[in-house]
Amino acid sequence: MAGNTIGRLFAVTSFGESHGAALGCVVDGCPPGLELSEADLQVDVDRRRPGTSQFTSQRREPDTVRILSGVFEGRTTGTPIGILVANEDQRARDYEKIKDRFRPGHADYTYQQKYGFRDYRGGGRSSARETVVRVAAGAIARKFLRERLQIVIHGYLAQMGPIVLQPVNPQAAYDNPFFCPDPSRVKELEDFIWRLREAGDSIGARVTVIAKGVPPGWGEPVFERLDADLASAMMGINAVKGVEIGAGFKAVEQRGSEHRDEMTPQGFKSNHAGGVLGGISSGQDIVVSLALKPTSSITLPGQTIDIHGAPVEIATTGRHDPCVGFRATPIAEAMLALVLMDHYLRFRAQCADVVLTTPVITHR
Amino acid sequence: MAGNTIGRLFAVTSFGESHGAALGCVVDGCPPGLELSEADLQVDVDRRRPGTSQFTSQRREPDTVRILSGVFEGRTTGTPIGILVANEDQRARDYEKIKDRFRPGHADYTYQQKYGFRDYRGGGRSSARETVVRVAAGAIARKFLRERLQIVIHGYLAQMGPIVLQPVNPQAAYDNPFFCPDPSRVKELEDFIWRLREAGDSIGARVTVIAKGVPPGWGEPVFERLDADLASAMMGINAVKGVEIGAGFKAVEQRGSEHRDEMTPQGFKSNHAGGVLGGISSGQDIVVSLALKPTSSITLPGQTIDIHGAPVEIATTGRHDPCVGFRATPIAEAMLALVLMDHYLRFRAQCADVVLTTPVITHR
Amino acid sequence: MAGNTIGRLFAVTSFGESHGAALGCVVDGCPPGLELSEADLQVDVDRRRPGTSQFTSQRREPDTVRILSGVFEGRTTGTPIGILVANEDQRARDYEKIKDRFRPGHADYTYQQKYGFRDYRGGGRSSARETVVRVAAGAIARKFLRERLQIVIHGYLAQMGPIVLQPVNPQAAYDNPFFCPDPSRVKELEDFIWRLREAGDSIGARVTVIAKGVPPGWGEPVFERLDADLASAMMGINAVKGVEIGAGFKAVEQRGSEHRDEMTPQGFKSNHAGGVLGGISSGQDIVVSLALKPTSSITLPGQTIDIHGAPVEIATTGRHDPCVGFRATPIAEAMLALVLMDHYLRFRAQCADVVLTTPVITHR
Amino acid sequence: MAGNTIGRLFAVTSFGESHGAALGCVVDGCPPGLELSEADLQVDVDRRRPGTSQFTSQRREPDTVRILSGVFEGRTTGTPIGILVANEDQRARDYEKIKDRFRPGHADYTYQQKYGFRDYRGGGRSSARETVVRVAAGAIARKFLRERLQIVIHGYLAQMGPIVLQPVNPQAAYDNPFFCPDPSRVKELEDFIWRLREAGDSIGARVTVIAKGVPPGWGEPVFERLDADLASAMMGINAVKGVEIGAGFKAVEQRGSEHRDEMTPQGFKSNHAGGVLGGISSGQDIVVSLALKPTSSITLPGQTIDIHGAPVEIATTGRHDPCVGFRATPIAEAMLALVLMDHYLRFRAQCADVVLTTPVITHR
Repeated sequence: MAGNTIGRLFAVTSFGESHGAALGCVVDGCPPGLELSEADLQVDVDRRRPGTSQFTSQRREPDTVRILSGVFEGRTTGTPIGILVANEDQRARDYEKIKDRFRPGHADYTYQQKYGFRDYRGGGRSSARETVVRVAAGAIARKFLRERLQIVIHGYLAQMGPIVLQPVNPQAAYDNPFFCPDPSRVKELEDFIWRLREAGDSIGARVTVIAKGVPPGWGEPVFERLDADLASAMMGINAVKGVEIGAGFKAVEQRGSEHRDEMTPQGFKSNHAGGVLGGISSGQDIVVSLALKPTSSITLPGQTIDIHGAPVEIATTGRHDPCVGFRATPIAEAMLALVLMDHYLRFRAQCADVVLTTPVITHR
Repeated sequence: MAGNTIGRLFAVTSFGESHGAALGCVVDGCPPGLELSEADLQVDVDRRRPGTSQFTSQRREPDTVRILSGVFEGRTTGTPIGILVANEDQRARDYEKIKDRFRPGHADYTYQQKYGFRDYRGGGRSSARETVVRVAAGAIARKFLRERLQIVIHGYLAQMGPIVLQPVNPQAAYDNPFFCPDPSRVKELEDFIWRLREAGDSIGARVTVIAKGVPPGWGEPVFERLDADLASAMMGINAVKGVEIGAGFKAVEQRGSEHRDEMTPQGFKSNHAGGVLGGISSGQDIVVSLALKPTSSITLPGQTIDIHGAPVEIATTGRHDPCVGFRATPIAEAMLALVLMDHYLRFRAQCADVVLTTPVITHR
Repeated sequence: MAGNTIGRLFAVTSFGESHGAALGCVVDGCPPGLELSEADLQVDVDRRRPGTSQFTSQRREPDTVRILSGVFEGRTTGTPIGILVANEDQRARDYEKIKDRFRPGHADYTYQQKYGFRDYRGGGRSSARETVVRVAAGAIARKFLRERLQIVIHGYLAQMGPIVLQPVNPQAAYDNPFFCPDPSRVKELEDFIWRLREAGDSIGARVTVIAKGVPPGWGEPVFERLDADLASAMMGINAVKGVEIGAGFKAVEQRGSEHRDEMTPQGFKSNHAGGVLGGISSGQDIVVSLALKPTSSITLPGQTIDIHGAPVEIATTGRHDPCVGFRATPIAEAMLALVLMDHYLRFRAQCADVVLTTPVITHR
Repeated sequence: MAGNTIGRLFAVTSFGESHGAALGCVVDGCPPGLELSEADLQVDVDRRRPGTSQFTSQRREPDTVRILSGVFEGRTTGTPIGILVANEDQRARDYEKIKDRFRPGHADYTYQQKYGFRDYRGGGRSSARETVVRVAAGAIARKFLRERLQIVIHGYLAQMGPIVLQPVNPQAAYDNPFFCPDPSRVKELEDFIWRLREAGDSIGARVTVIAKGVPPGWGEPVFERLDADLASAMMGINAVKGVEIGAGFKAVEQRGSEHRDEMTPQGFKSNHAGGVLGGISSGQDIVVSLALKPTSSITLPGQTIDIHGAPVEIATTGRHDPCVGFRATPIAEAMLALVLMDHYLRFRAQCADVVLTTPVITHR
């Protein structure tokens, strides 16, 4: 496959461009019998939707999710679930100005040099708009994990530029446009964003996503490890430049006596591992952090080249987010759900009849 | 596949345990006609070999690489290359003591809970010894990339605990056991390791690997992006807890005006992207960094449980490295080579006949 | 993937049910720069369309193909091509009567026992209607093969029940509803079908498809051989029970001195191989034959069971073809095109830089 | 992958050439906990071994199977099972004479034109000797299917040239070198073979393999159907030119009223389907037949070309079988086991928690 499918057993194949007729995906491998409606998907999709606050892109898309197949009488049938989201607010005229020049930090140049030409309208396939179908597909996985296995996934903004946020109230992340888990600091973020917008600049962010309730044993040990698949899934989100599991880069300065999570019959004494040991889930919370780069679509002019290789200047004036980071939160949650769902199916394929002799220790 | 294969077109399937008869792999998809001998593989394998200095595990393995198939009259035939490395210094008795208890921070517990039982000898399949075949396979990819496409890969230790190293002389990384790119600081590392060993503890590390000469256009845009595949490959190395491409987590605090790599006809003005834009190589150097956790095999005793769930104490006394980080350098180089090779083949499968109209700008 | 994707590099992922909202597919991996319009797909789709003659199912579907993505300014972009065919003539009421009982010879019972329940409307996912998207996808492959590589694919009805047909005029197969390659015998087929319909019965068929112009070297030698992939693709067409390459089952009674295709500088002296030797194309015509079973949807009553396991009688009265065989012709052509396209890309991935020293002998 | 891996979840990756150091494979995805020894594999391997009767190739190979990994304390661990069979009787000198010319009907020419050169010793990778590892891998699948699921697989020679054999005593097929299921006709086969050998010629064959006890529900409905995967697996055996499921090509002349297998609470009334409906197992016996071409390695001289394209004559004088057909019996059994095992794991991945409401009808 040319890179538009993720997952071995719970497989999502994505298609569509920012300004084409529609975005869509096919979810193949979903277990039959799961109650599912378009509304189940819409909830998550609405959380990533642009234009829902003044702090995000002003593109107006209703992002209405349609299920075209794979669901009958309210339940999944086990056959592929076709999902479609029409593009309605296309305004392709906005992009004529970048038709002949490459935005630095974007995929314009790399698409041009890979394929020989490109759909320049809004970034075409490289637009973050593509992630709407990942969120829709992720909602299916998430529902299954939650309803059948009591696995709960949530994410939040952990840092925006210099502002480091603590998850004092993770649930609160769903109540503000920044996915900020500390309601007391939302105002600070607002002010920061406004100053950035005035400066015509943008900022990076860190997002953390967590899955609680994953049992031990998921993940392949060598190449398709749970952590490796998570790294791939997260690095595949637009603008992500780094991925950490558990302690992540903090582990560089840790000692073994600190990092190793000691075990007791009551559970692990810490979770530096981020829930993965040797590529396999340990029963601890799965904790993944992402670094998102500042968007390159800023009004401060910069140097670039045109499609003939000549030097030109560029400044973006379209509808863009000053910080893409926080909007990645529901996307990262979806990717986490997709990876876990796939590994659950893989686990039961190979190990469904394993009889455990060691008790599973309490999570922590 | 149950997770022991990496790569779509240049595919490596690995097998073997730390204390089994042998480790091996099958390299499938290598283009025919590449001159190849066992010596070509041995060079890289020798660089990762344990027991070559007093700073690494004292296991004595000659790690002699045999090619069993796929090479005829000194050239690859296009059929699968079978590779075998026999285990000779097995000393399984060393591991009897951990037969019934789980080492914290290791895969002992997760293997047990996934498969119902485990090969406890030296970590079995979860041992870093498995990476010997990745290095052997990577050597084939590396040779192809170097000879046919002038792509050069090198890696170095970028940090060990608090000691941050600058690549003042990357070539020097091959001349000391730490893969330290700054010869003036090797003594400092030695002292640090000795103090750790006395303390019975271990430390994390950061390793950086770079590929120079990768042309623009490699990598799929959405899921099997070049950066996503690199993240997966690197996170799949034992002990890795974080992966960065280019600026990585530094991007969280960067502004767009700083991070975006402006373009001129003479090349990119910077390389915060780490050579990947929109999942596709840009022609800049590919730069990947890894965070490696401190090994949990330390002599400081710690709490754990046994296979019946009862609390016990554990202290490791076998042959282990106080820092696994630097030894990951040749492994990370191999993984980088494998990912690039795979994407080269994928690129030419889809885009071999693309005619470029935009000039490729000079690397930087 | 749960079985709805075909192809490694030119990959088609199908979705949709007979009476759902739509059928569709995603074609991933198409080389960029191919001129493509919806009309290019419609031509082939119209050839398989039901309701175009009195000899086929009377379901009225316009089968209008829409391209949702992957084509920009009239050319493929290299990104996934989303294809949609809406279901318009759904008449689900026709199928209420089979809601609670299993049609013998259909997938009703097997779907029920695999998934626990089924979309009973018109066979749901098991309906031959699903093949409309295979034909649409195949049209893309076919266009590429024809325009870039001068490979021409054609198929015809080789046998219907006792009536064996010779390809006296293969082009004529496109001018009659039976895909009969011998215009002089069309009347005979018509009469035969009418008698079957009166008898309330159905009949099997044999279809042959041929690709001319395939160069030597396509196909992997061991498992993903060209002939193995063709066998899989053809056996995956609804109602197919047998597949032959070249001499096929005739080879059972042949002697080696007859079967082996002797070679001369002017070409092969025969083509018993059907264009594949050792799993790899030989430059001879690729010749594949399919056995299609008689449809089980007949008006003659038969014994079956209901969903509770009780015995019941069944007789089909819906819109069905007395012979599905001839309608498989454009589907088999499409599958042949898909397999060849995939292997072309695989060939150039691994062997793009092979320099041949042996002259390619003339096709025969 | 470049075609040397079969199976999605129970995946076998094969390597090795006829006259290289060894043949081998990696079996990935085997459920943990299966009791397994080298002797379990040797039994099946011995059944396909050459040199065991005067009616087969006289190459002397002990074909001793070694398990290198994935088994610990007598049970599979869930990690990859590395399997090795050393080549001992290589006699490469026998093949010098075909170094520069292509044997008609063999893969010599196609390998040369795909890869630019070839390992000419005994056919290299294209030799049927490669199938030894398929049989070894198949033995693992077969043991699991038999011990855990009571599925029994057996095969027999159904036809050799004009001699059609009835399975009057399928067990007897294991007691004679021809895998003939009718002991009364073994002498007839012997005489036929002797006459062929005197004539310097060879003959084709038909082999049938059957699996009893497969429950309904295995197989994906559209592309990776059980029948499609069987077709691929069987067509991938050397010399196979045709594959049938159930009635196969007989279905061409059957009427629907005859072919459809009517259903009763006591079971199916017939088995024209060969155990597969809509790509999914029905609970009937799985019945697959293969057409094997006559070997082209005969002493009757024939026309061919050399590697420079010049016309030459060729006559084979090495160690070859006058009929390869019957030797395919254990190979086809192994392939059947591998496909079923893979689909069992796929089935339980997606459908492990399906609750059936319809009773499973008795097999027939």
